[in-house]
Amino acid sequence: MEKSKIYFLGHLWLASLMTLMSFLASSSVAQDTIPRDSVFISRIYEEVLTNSDCYENLRVLCKTVGHRLAGSEGADKAIAWGQNTLEKYPLDNVSLMPVEVPHWVRGDVEYGYYTCAKDSAIPVAMTALGGSVGSKGEITAEVVEVKSFDELKALGSSKVKGKIVFFNKAMDPMLINTGAAYGGAYPIRGDGPSEAARYGAVACLIRSLTLAEDKFAHTGGTHYNDSLPKIPAAALSSVDSRALSAALKENPQTTFTINMSCEAFPRKMQANVIGEIRGSEFPDQYIIVGGHLDSWDIGEGAHDDGTGIVQSIEVLRALQAVGYKPRYSIRAVLFINEEFGNDGGETYAAHAKENNLVHIAAIESDGGGFTPRGFGMEGTDAQFSRLESWKQYLEPYNLHQFRRGHSGVDIRPLKNDRIALFGLIVDNQRYFDYHHSSNDIFENVNKRELEMGAASMAALVYLIDQSAIPAN
Amino acid sequence: MEKSKIYFLGHLWLASLMTLMSFLASSSVAQDTIPRDSVFISRIYEEVLTNSDCYENLRVLCKTVGHRLAGSEGADKAIAWGQNTLEKYPLDNVSLMPVEVPHWVRGDVEYGYYTCAKDSAIPVAMTALGGSVGSKGEITAEVVEVKSFDELKALGSSKVKGKIVFFNKAMDPMLINTGAAYGGAYPIRGDGPSEAARYGAVACLIRSLTLAEDKFAHTGGTHYNDSLPKIPAAALSSVDSRALSAALKENPQTTFTINMSCEAFPRKMQANVIGEIRGSEFPDQYIIVGGHLDSWDIGEGAHDDGTGIVQSIEVLRALQAVGYKPRYSIRAVLFINEEFGNDGGETYAAHAKENNLVHIAAIESDGGGFTPRGFGMEGTDAQFSRLESWKQYLEPYNLHQFRRGHSGVDIRPLKNDRIALFGLIVDNQRYFDYHHSSNDIFENVNKRELEMGAASMAALVYLIDQSAIPAN
Repeated sequence: MEKSKIYFLGHLWLASLMTLMSFLASSSVAQDTIPRDSVFISRIYEEVLTNSDCYENLRVLCKTVGHRLAGSEGADKAIAWGQNTLEKYPLDNVSLMPVEVPHWVRGDVEYGYYTCAKDSAIPVAMTALGGSVGSKGEITAEVVEVKSFDELKALGSSKVKGKIVFFNKAMDPMLINTGAAYGGAYPIRGDGPSEAARYGAVACLIRSLTLAEDKFAHTGGTHYNDSLPKIPAAALSSVDSRALSAALKENPQTTFTINMSCEAFPRKMQANVIGEIRGSEFPDQYIIVGGHLDSWDIGEGAHDDGTGIVQSIEVLRALQAVGYKPRYSIRAVLFINEEFGNDGGETYAAHAKENNLVHIAAIESDGGGFTPRGFGMEGTDAQFSRLESWKQYLEPYNLHQFRRGHSGVDIRPLKNDRIALFGLIVDNQRYFDYHHSSNDIFENVNKRELEMGAASMAALVYLIDQSAIPAN
Repeated sequence: MEKSKIYFLGHLWLASLMTLMSFLASSSVAQDTIPRDSVFISRIYEEVLTNSDCYENLRVLCKTVGHRLAGSEGADKAIAWGQNTLEKYPLDNVSLMPVEVPHWVRGDVEYGYYTCAKDSAIPVAMTALGGSVGSKGEITAEVVEVKSFDELKALGSSKVKGKIVFFNKAMDPMLINTGAAYGGAYPIRGDGPSEAARYGAVACLIRSLTLAEDKFAHTGGTHYNDSLPKIPAAALSSVDSRALSAALKENPQTTFTINMSCEAFPRKMQANVIGEIRGSEFPDQYIIVGGHLDSWDIGEGAHDDGTGIVQSIEVLRALQAVGYKPRYSIRAVLFINEEFGNDGGETYAAHAKENNLVHIAAIESDGGGFTPRGFGMEGTDAQFSRLESWKQYLEPYNLHQFRRGHSGVDIRPLKNDRIALFGLIVDNQRYFDYHHSSNDIFENVNKRELEMGAASMAALVYLIDQSAIPAN
């Protein structure tokens, strides 16, 4: 692209003015609030796009803390980082909320390879699934490849017993919303190991949940059925999955050797981190923004969910920087352990219920730090209508998707008749290239895309705070 | 993000079905065409998202040809690559159209540094602007920093004569459409050197046109006013621009030294490359898809505009792969020299006019291989209404932006009363991080985002071919 182009969307102040003009021409809503809202949102975006701390905060989180699985030392460091970072800003309160979390450790030994008749051992990119038992040394067995639980069931114990089951099921590339493709493939990771054990398998491999063809293995939680034997479970990279499948077609006697020293330890205490600006009119009613502070134990947890954390902090920073005094109390909540049991979200919600804390809205960012495209929402029809009425303020920032649906794993336990739950919708085409892998690093986050998400969240907080949100 | 999420957009076949159902319920348009169109578009996306060649074609273009400024040997290689690549597919015709292009060579010497009183020379990341004259050895002079032509004019010859003018003007981060921010900053690159020369400057520096803070220098064409002296012109990286500005504040006597051996040679002949599927009903009427085969002479021209080239080729491949027989002739046109004079686009349009070739529509991709978001259009109200009527088919693929405005530099010379011109709108938040710099490389293109763009273009070609487009 070379020459100067005249585009339609002019400077945002101009956009604000145009919104104002069209609104004055057509609406019966109290007219004095409109320019104020539109112009104020423009100020929020300007603040975030020119003075944001969130990219630098993400760099520090990724590069000095790194990955931070709940229960790990990394998570302890991340909690301290979160507290210190929030305390740099002139907030009214920064606190920790104790949360009990699991403690699973990958261990030092983790490798896998397959052996065809004609070949020597071929190593693969492999990662234990979170929560997997260790293999107690090498396990070598023939491999049974299936694509579904139905295929596994059809084979039955006679074909599976003593073998390693390999679920070679790709995410569906035809789902334009890659989160839906992940949702479709997720049951194999969660339930596959126990289903394989049901028929006597000695270990379980899955194809990584990714849409990319590469050598990154993607971990993620698995969940054993306590009534069945617990067998080691790991994910192979998509490229290795394809190669193993080809090897099995050529020689069905191909064996796979797996060795993993991962193990579970007793649960321990960690914490949610909470920063707060007290509301001027309704200090005992809360609007929260959040993401999860924990990550998986490979990579740097940049998109999952370092970006949600630094965006949530940025919402508080930016609102204060533009001099905004919220009517409701605004909290940034850095939840611990979304990835492996949602303890932070559950604990926060239980605490709110016990103490009768009224939460009018919650916004979560946990889809990666990509260009924002809108908000999903869980709530009443009236609340959704209110969200739709705000389109006029948000579409100038290329937010076009407003839909009922998923909000966020951490905030969902807060669901009741009163609260409106929102999830930031982002352009997630490349999210699963990084997700839960050693490829989820700071360098794969774009500064401006990250900031656009933070500004969008801050704009929504402002609209909720100004206009409230219907109670039901 | 950990747990399975239920998202609203289901499988695309389901989306197609829903489109059909809502359409049957509400519309009076001939009903039998709707399921066919919706399902066919789903087949196109499926073909591109599962069997596309475009990412591999881009890899070969970037890694075996590399950058390919019009007039260079790289461009000769790119033309041969384009012809060979198109000839791999069972098209009805592949041809070259001779185009005269400029021939400017960067040369072996290119460096710059500044010298404060207290420091030794500090080298900068610098790149000659395309078309710049050479410096004929080192030029060392004091630096006058300005942000605009008005500031320069106010200083006048007395303050500028014998100095190096440094236009330190950043792109406006508040323009959410980064293309508009580029358009706003573009005049300084195009006209800055001659405006500086008007007041006696001996060289001209500009801040690179980018929204990123990094050490990449971004080139691009500049245009001398023939009535003024031609002075060397170069772009500094954004980080170096900031540092030079700080040095000048500390010591206004800071000097800058520039040495560039770039030079212009006589114009020469290269070619547009054209691949064609003949239409079954209207073989003498054309729908074209295109991008530009040339790039600037640093980096690999991946996003600008390798992606547009391989997407255009992919449109032909995918339509044939799904067995589509177009009614109109469909051409992929790989234009030569968009970057420095638009010779390919002008020559193609002149040839079409001379030979009375009727072009009913043209679609260009020249905004980078990012997630597509819609189409811009130049044409009549009736044509735009037709585009809007197709939203129902395109929104399931997250295409939401349909607006009057810019289409593409290469196709714009075709503009007349008959043709509808379309430009693929993409998520351009990170485009100018790469644009015209050594950072515009294959590794910065995401396979799936690239494919989504190609599928979107193919879907639009299909809709135009099936429904035609009003003549005016």
